Amino acid sequence: MDSFFKVKTPEEVFRIMDQFSPVGEETILFEKALARVLSEDIVASEDLPGFSRSAMDGYAVRAKDTFGASESLPAFFEVIGEVAMGKICKRSVGEGQAVKISTGGMLPEGADGVVMVEYCHPLDETTLEVTRAVSPLENIIQATDDYRKGEKVLNKGQVLRPQDLGVMAGLGRLEACVYRRPKVAIISTGDEIVPANERTRAGQVRDMNRYTLTAFCQRAGAKCIHTGLCPDDFGLLKAMVVESLEKADTVWISGGSSVGTRDLTLKVLEALPDFELLVHGISISPGKPTIIGKSGTKPIIGLPGQVASALVVAEVVLTRLLSKLSGKKNAFGGFQSGVEAELSRNIESAAGREDYIRVKLMSGKNSLIAEPVFGKSGLISTLAVADGLIQIGMNTEGLYRGQKVHVRLL
Amino acid sequence: MDSFFKVKTPEEVFRIMDQFSPVGEETILFEKALARVLSEDIVASEDLPGFSRSAMDGYAVRAKDTFGASESLPAFFEVIGEVAMGKICKRSVGEGQAVKISTGGMLPEGADGVVMVEYCHPLDETTLEVTRAVSPLENIIQATDDYRKGEKVLNKGQVLRPQDLGVMAGLGRLEACVYRRPKVAIISTGDEIVPANERTRAGQVRDMNRYTLTAFCQRAGAKCIHTGLCPDDFGLLKAMVVESLEKADTVWISGGSSVGTRDLTLKVLEALPDFELLVHGISISPGKPTIIGKSGTKPIIGLPGQVASALVVAEVVLTRLLSKLSGKKNAFGGFQSGVEAELSRNIESAAGREDYIRVKLMSGKNSLIAEPVFGKSGLISTLAVADGLIQIGMNTEGLYRGQKVHVRLL
Repeated sequence: MDSFFKVKTPEEVFRIMDQFSPVGEETILFEKALARVLSEDIVASEDLPGFSRSAMDGYAVRAKDTFGASESLPAFFEVIGEVAMGKICKRSVGEGQAVKISTGGMLPEGADGVVMVEYCHPLDETTLEVTRAVSPLENIIQATDDYRKGEKVLNKGQVLRPQDLGVMAGLGRLEACVYRRPKVAIISTGDEIVPANERTRAGQVRDMNRYTLTAFCQRAGAKCIHTGLCPDDFGLLKAMVVESLEKADTVWISGGSSVGTRDLTLKVLEALPDFELLVHGISISPGKPTIIGKSGTKPIIGLPGQVASALVVAEVVLTRLLSKLSGKKNAFGGFQSGVEAELSRNIESAAGREDYIRVKLMSGKNSLIAEPVFGKSGLISTLAVADGLIQIGMNTEGLYRGQKVHVRLL
Repeated sequence: MDSFFKVKTPEEVFRIMDQFSPVGEETILFEKALARVLSEDIVASEDLPGFSRSAMDGYAVRAKDTFGASESLPAFFEVIGEVAMGKICKRSVGEGQAVKISTGGMLPEGADGVVMVEYCHPLDETTLEVTRAVSPLENIIQATDDYRKGEKVLNKGQVLRPQDLGVMAGLGRLEACVYRRPKVAIISTGDEIVPANERTRAGQVRDMNRYTLTAFCQRAGAKCIHTGLCPDDFGLLKAMVVESLEKADTVWISGGSSVGTRDLTLKVLEALPDFELLVHGISISPGKPTIIGKSGTKPIIGLPGQVASALVVAEVVLTRLLSKLSGKKNAFGGFQSGVEAELSRNIESAAGREDYIRVKLMSGKNSLIAEPVFGKSGLISTLAVADGLIQIGMNTEGLYRGQKVHVRLL
């Protein structure tokens, strides 16, 4: 059986994920674009701020007229006016002249420096004593200091943050071309699963996977579609997968933790006309019995039935898939954000697989303490009590008490 | 002037922020509760999973019947049936009997252990050879392993994550009592500011603060209200603040980076009947000229006009405020998530204030490299190019090249 040879390392799985492409583009209002991914570079259509502005409250002058000025040898200026905010100053600054200006005010013609108000002492309505020299351009924001017309401002593939929307506002760029949010179809399978709003009978459990995985996708910026709960039946599951493939960009089948159901999922997928199996098992724990394939260009994922394992696989592997489908550039060579902590005790691990250990964080004396969460790995309570995951690499046999670990927050 | 003495350290400001309370509660569907903050503890209304289940594919047996079984001395069992998923098995397991069971299947009466399928060898339809012993409860998830009825499951003040929604689904808990999302009114002020969709004339700039701060609030889970752009006018600004206080839980006035406008903001606030000034200046850079006060129980913030400074203050100080208004428990003693990096060069800093340095991250050989972003601090381009902030403490005069730094991602 061909699929037997498809157990992959997480690194191999990442490379497989990287083959998938963004699902499409759309144009939206820039102010709705927070957390969306740019599908184009954005170039400044004009200079920003577009005129020379004062960076300080003070007086605009010709810088050379202040040269040599000090407490003991002040320079004197004739005050010829004041810059109104948002307006052009009609006066031009000549030799020995000064114009009062506020932060953000437009520099008057002739002036090339601003003396901070602290060093300016008005002697009467029109006479100003200046006790400090400024160099040309001092305390001035030039017309192109933020951006020069034609300069690249934001990059294709970047996730838009508050300041990026600020930049677009500043440039009057009212629309953004972004990647479409991928649509994920989630199918929960299993004869023992009932909807969350139903009373369970002995032997039945409510559908936790649907809600956990939906929220996971939403947090990653994807949308979810539900085709419903599916019993362990070839025909029904196949119909649901086909329907889901029509509506969604990727299909995630979750549940069926028994060998029988896992086999069923694989049989259904292999019965699709254009299915290609890419991964049959990943050398991680929890989450080994994961299936990854594609139908045409659309990834299909078979997740472990135990919700805790399914979520760890989603976090570790499918975050990468959603990034790719969303068009996100891989930032910082894949470094993961999180917190650093000190391990509270030794943890053993089998070599030859990557272990993800759930930890609870506590404040220690000088650092955070990561305390491993024990309990049967399939239980959702272990994930609810955990603050994050630590990774034990393929070739590591364990971690030591007191060792610094990186905790990826869950 | 009393307000002169109100310059506070960031630590003092945090303690002031901590005095504010959650803005209210509401009950929502659990499946809409991702990233919301629980305003009640959630207690298990029943046991989860509620019945004993197999954690493996295999055969349910009386554990003691397997004692001593090994490759060389197998035990033999009579197979009396199979557990259907989601159903009660009608057969009871007696001495020397076994029932086939899949992962997640309900344990039949009489059985107290499951032998993994790998150690079970069917000899014919009803005879099973078992080559390994199991202890009582081995490979079994007990009825209360996830949760026991009455046990606390989720905590008041916690932010709901995918797995927490999964827990609620599992318990059939269809509604959640959460804190209301705080409503922030954002007022942009300044005679030189025009809306983002307008053409600028010389001396004018578009309103960047509104969009940057709105997106910042949205990312933190708050809602925003806009009362509009306000010129530098006492009467107009006062009317807008009064209107905003009626509609929102907190009012943030941004813009007015000049002394004149800053004074105007303070004058307007002090003219409110019940205003109390709490902070007039914070010893951080950028962001010193920040005003914090309250009207009744509602915080009012005067932010620096330069959008880059305003966003740093929001990130450092107002994240804390929004947490408090949202009812979030302060997790991990305030440790901030982020990445660790190595500084690419020396940075000097003035003692007596906390500096926030914008950095760009690059992949280095063994770690990330944080490269300080230079440029006039008020420019939004410095924030657009930056990946994060590093903090230089009050009593530190600088950081060294090669030093490990914690980068808070922007």
